[in-house]
Amino acid sequence: MGDSIKTYVFDVYGTLFDVHSVKELCEELYPEKGESISFTWREKQLEYSFLRQIMGKYTTFLEITKDALRYAVKKQDRTLTSENEEKLIEAYLHLTPYPEVRDVLERLKAGNKLAVFSNGSHDMLDPLIERAGLAELFDHIISIDEAKQYKPSPAAYNLVLENLNVRREEVLFMSSNGWDISGAKSFGFQTAWINRGNQPTEELNLKPDHIFTNLSGV
Amino acid sequence: MGDSIKTYVFDVYGTLFDVHSVKELCEELYPEKGESISFTWREKQLEYSFLRQIMGKYTTFLEITKDALRYAVKKQDRTLTSENEEKLIEAYLHLTPYPEVRDVLERLKAGNKLAVFSNGSHDMLDPLIERAGLAELFDHIISIDEAKQYKPSPAAYNLVLENLNVRREEVLFMSSNGWDISGAKSFGFQTAWINRGNQPTEELNLKPDHIFTNLSGV
Repeated sequence: MGDSIKTYVFDVYGTLFDVHSVKELCEELYPEKGESISFTWREKQLEYSFLRQIMGKYTTFLEITKDALRYAVKKQDRTLTSENEEKLIEAYLHLTPYPEVRDVLERLKAGNKLAVFSNGSHDMLDPLIERAGLAELFDHIISIDEAKQYKPSPAAYNLVLENLNVRREEVLFMSSNGWDISGAKSFGFQTAWINRGNQPTEELNLKPDHIFTNLSGV
Repeated sequence: MGDSIKTYVFDVYGTLFDVHSVKELCEELYPEKGESISFTWREKQLEYSFLRQIMGKYTTFLEITKDALRYAVKKQDRTLTSENEEKLIEAYLHLTPYPEVRDVLERLKAGNKLAVFSNGSHDMLDPLIERAGLAELFDHIISIDEAKQYKPSPAAYNLVLENLNVRREEVLFMSSNGWDISGAKSFGFQTAWINRGNQPTEELNLKPDHIFTNLSGV
């Protein structure tokens, strides 16, 4: 990366952690429906954050994650008991980090500021990063809950500037989510799209500055 | 419907017209990929309207529809020639209305004001309704392009009040899109969800006032 980059900012869900590592538990609790439930759960989690942002009806990402889970189970004509909800939400606090994450963070930490910046509220973000043993590698854990404005709104990305006291062009923002990269690029960050799923570039006239298949490329 | 309803307002895409009536042409132009392209086209069309609303990067729904088509074709590793783009966008101006639409409109027209209210810009909305022979049944054709704010933002739904000079509780808003019903309910309209796809209710704490499987129930 160029000399102008002083701060490396990571998205969390899908970028540092595999959101589909809950699939096995979904399958155990809802046989033959695990993959569908996991897929809809993530899809609705994102959609509800977008819709609530547009409607001006904020609630925390933890609440949205519960709502999305409820929808996903209902869609498969199954019932979400409070016991299953508790197990699945607990599993979301123990997602698996991608294999290259620790090495990349340790390498970049020398001489740079590292932060995470997520739609997740601190009640789900802090335990996740703590339990994965990654907390000491980050200088800041930034949640959009501090502004109650979801990504990709400019007000959300602005939290990075407020927390880290940097200029936007000094930030390299990394996300596996194409829409998040579009939002960050629109805001003025330098961007690296971690295209883990070999997806086409989004057609939003906001191309990523860099594209890698995983974080090792950074 | 109750006596308090004076104005019947219809969403367009998916509610009056079947957006997947372009599937056959997709299949003809991209054999074996028609259904996938049609599905992703619609999915991305909605997602891009949400994302642009949140990023504050407005462009018309016609442009978004072209962008979404480009993504959908790319996702299937196919190429969208300008000839194919022209054909498919032209097909979007000739979507098929659902079979009950004309009867329902003719019945409701007696004594009530009827309007359409859509994310679609007038350059796609007006020819669509005209060519289906439905234009004379509506008192108003309202596009969010007049405010450049996509649904489900309150500023979009407010266009209905401005155009029709009614109070929000006098409006019955009908849509097949669960997210659109949530937005309309949040704004204060009475709502009827036309649940054509037998989907679960959205988990946004905004239940529809009525649910029907097609418009005949209204």
